[in-house]
Amino acid sequence: MKVDGRDTRPIRLSGDGKTVQVIDQRRLPHEFVVLDLVTVDDVIMAIQEMVVRGAPLIGVTAAYGVFVAALNAEGRSDSFAYFSGECKRIKAARPTAINLIWGVERVTAVVREMRDDAARIDAARVEAGLIAEAEAENCHLIGEYGVEIVEAISRRKKGKTVHILTHCNAGWLACIEYGTATAPMYAAFDRGLDIHIWVDETRPLNQGARLTAWELGKHGIDHTIVTDNAGGHLMQHGMVDLVIVGTDRTTHTGDVANKIGTYLKALAARDNQVPFYVALPSSTFDWELKDGVKDIPIEERDPDEVRYVQGLENGAVKKVMISPPESKAANYAFDVTPARLVTGFITERGICKADAEAIAALFPEKGDCF
Amino acid sequence: MKVDGRDTRPIRLSGDGKTVQVIDQRRLPHEFVVLDLVTVDDVIMAIQEMVVRGAPLIGVTAAYGVFVAALNAEGRSDSFAYFSGECKRIKAARPTAINLIWGVERVTAVVREMRDDAARIDAARVEAGLIAEAEAENCHLIGEYGVEIVEAISRRKKGKTVHILTHCNAGWLACIEYGTATAPMYAAFDRGLDIHIWVDETRPLNQGARLTAWELGKHGIDHTIVTDNAGGHLMQHGMVDLVIVGTDRTTHTGDVANKIGTYLKALAARDNQVPFYVALPSSTFDWELKDGVKDIPIEERDPDEVRYVQGLENGAVKKVMISPPESKAANYAFDVTPARLVTGFITERGICKADAEAIAALFPEKGDCF
Repeated sequence: MKVDGRDTRPIRLSGDGKTVQVIDQRRLPHEFVVLDLVTVDDVIMAIQEMVVRGAPLIGVTAAYGVFVAALNAEGRSDSFAYFSGECKRIKAARPTAINLIWGVERVTAVVREMRDDAARIDAARVEAGLIAEAEAENCHLIGEYGVEIVEAISRRKKGKTVHILTHCNAGWLACIEYGTATAPMYAAFDRGLDIHIWVDETRPLNQGARLTAWELGKHGIDHTIVTDNAGGHLMQHGMVDLVIVGTDRTTHTGDVANKIGTYLKALAARDNQVPFYVALPSSTFDWELKDGVKDIPIEERDPDEVRYVQGLENGAVKKVMISPPESKAANYAFDVTPARLVTGFITERGICKADAEAIAALFPEKGDCF
Repeated sequence: MKVDGRDTRPIRLSGDGKTVQVIDQRRLPHEFVVLDLVTVDDVIMAIQEMVVRGAPLIGVTAAYGVFVAALNAEGRSDSFAYFSGECKRIKAARPTAINLIWGVERVTAVVREMRDDAARIDAARVEAGLIAEAEAENCHLIGEYGVEIVEAISRRKKGKTVHILTHCNAGWLACIEYGTATAPMYAAFDRGLDIHIWVDETRPLNQGARLTAWELGKHGIDHTIVTDNAGGHLMQHGMVDLVIVGTDRTTHTGDVANKIGTYLKALAARDNQVPFYVALPSSTFDWELKDGVKDIPIEERDPDEVRYVQGLENGAVKKVMISPPESKAANYAFDVTPARLVTGFITERGICKADAEAIAALFPEKGDCF
C-alpha cells in the first residue's frame, strides 16, 4: 500500500535479495523505522517483540525466517541439522497464531530434501516470496468478497455513511497488502462508498490507535478512535452497521481466536443485531482443533505491557507507568469468540457461515480433517 | 479509610470549618495532593475535570458546593439570587450522575427559605456534612449486605479464593468510606475471606489501574490489573466468580448507567453465568426515568482523554500521545447496562432484583413515581 505516495509493505527483501527487512511496528505511528532480520534470533525477536504482528504477516515472516535459517546454515558442517533446529525454534516463537507454524512448514516442505546449501537458500527465498504474493492476493480477494457486504448495507442505507467497527489491526501492516479486516474497507473506499471506521484502540499495545488509525489515515479513510470500552454503547445506539475483525487462529468448526477483547465486541454485536464478520485467509484456519475456547493456546505476555503505555511526548517516544508500582497485572493476548457469535467468514474463496460444514464446503481439499 | 495509617476521606472540611478540601484524584496514584475548593468555579472545575468523581462523591461535593455558594454569596446585596444561580450552575456541571442534582437539591431544600447569609452558610455546612456521613453509612451497609454474596461463594468453593472483577473505581475514593462496589470486598477481607480482585484498568482515564488498584493495595487486598478487553476471557475460563460494579445513575426500572464498558462486562457475565451485581446507595436511583438506554444522558468528554495517556516517567507525571496526531477520537464516558443483564442491586437496605417491583419494595416511600 502507499505511504506518502510510496509503495510499502511490512516485509520485503533488500535489493540484493539477501536481507529480510521489516517495518518496526512497535514504533509506529510516531516513527517509521525499518529493521534488518539477519539471524534467526532476529526473526524470533521480531515475532515475539511484535516488531511484526498479525497472523498473515507472522506467517510470511516465519516463511522468510526459514530463508534466514538457510542462509545462516550455509557452509556449516552440520548445515541440515542446524537448519532444521532453527526452523523448530521459529515455530515456537509465539503460541496462538497458527500461521507461524503454517509459514515454516510451507517452506520446509519444499526444501526438506535439499542437501545443497545454495539450492536450499534459493528455494526457501523463492517459496517465501510466493507465500507473500499469495497472501497479498488472498487479501485482495477478501476485499473483493467483503466489499459486497458493505455495498449491501450502503444500498439499504440509501448511500448514507456505513459505520464499520474493527478491533486491533488486521490491516495491511498485519498482512502484506490490503489487510484482512481492512480489505473490504479499502475496497469500499476505492469504489467511492461512504464509510466511516470506528477504531478500537486495542489495549494493551494499542494496535488500533497506533496502526489501524495510521493506515486508514494514510489512505484517507474517515475514522474515529474509541476506547475498547466504547463499542457496546455505539452498537446500542445504532452507530455501528457492521463489525469486521481479523483472527490469529480459527478452528475448522468456526471458533475465532483474535486479539483480547474481540469476544466482548461479538457479544455486543449479537445483543444489538449487528453483523459480526471475521476476515481471514485460509492459512489462518486450524484444521485440527475443534473447540476453540478449550484448545487454542492463549499467549500470556509481559504484564508490563499493561502497566506501561508508550506514546509521544515532546517529540520523543516514551513509556509512562499508569498503575501503582506495586500492583500486579495480567496480560492475556487473545480471547476466543465462539462460532455461535460469528455472522460469517470472509475468505479468499468467498463468504461462508461460521460452522464446520460451510467451511468444509469452501475448502473441500481439507475435508479429511472432519 | 486508612492511607499509610492515617484516616483519609476524599472530601473534608478544613480545621476551621471554612474550606472544602478534596484529594486531587487526577494525580493518583503517582502524587497525593489536596486541593482547596474556595469558589463555585473551583467546585465545578473539580467535578468536570474529575478531581473528584464517582456518583456518591459527586453528590457530596455538590452538597458542599452549595455551602461554598452560600459562603461566596455572603454580604452581597443580591445574596439569595446569586446563591440560587450558583446552585443551578453546580447542578449542570456533568450530565450523567444523578447524585449531582440530588446533592444540590438536598441542601437547597433545607436553606431555601433562609434569607440570613450566616444562617444559610451554617445550615448548608451542617446538611452537607450530614449527607457525607449518611453516604459513608450507606456504603458501610452496602458492605454488610454485599459480603453475604461473597461469603456464599466462598462456602461453595470451600474457602478457595473468590475472584471478583470490578470496572472503574467505585471505591472509597468515589464515595466517602468503604466505596460501593468495593464495600463488600473490604468487608470480606476484614472478615478473613480469601479474595482476589480483577481490576479493569478502565480506559480512557484508568480509574481502575490508578485508583482501585491503589485503594486495594493500601488496604492489602490481593488484586491484578487487567485491560478492559480481558474480562470476557477470564469469565470464559472460570477465573471470575462474581462481578461487582458501581453506577452513576440507575433507573427505578433497573437500567444501570456506569462507566463506559460496564455493559460489555455484563454481557460476558451473562454469557458465562457469572453473577453481575451493582452496588449503590439509593441516592443513585433515578425515580423518574424508565428506559435507561434511551433516556439517561451520556456525557461526551474531551477526545484528548482518549488520545493521550497520563503516567509516570522518571519520577514525573507526563502525558503521552498514543495515536497519530491527525486521527479523531470519540469519548463517551458511560454506557447503560439493561436491567435484564443485572443479577441484583446491593443497596443500604439490602439486596434486590433489578426490576421496578423489587426496587419499589425496598424503597416504598418512592412508590409514587411508579
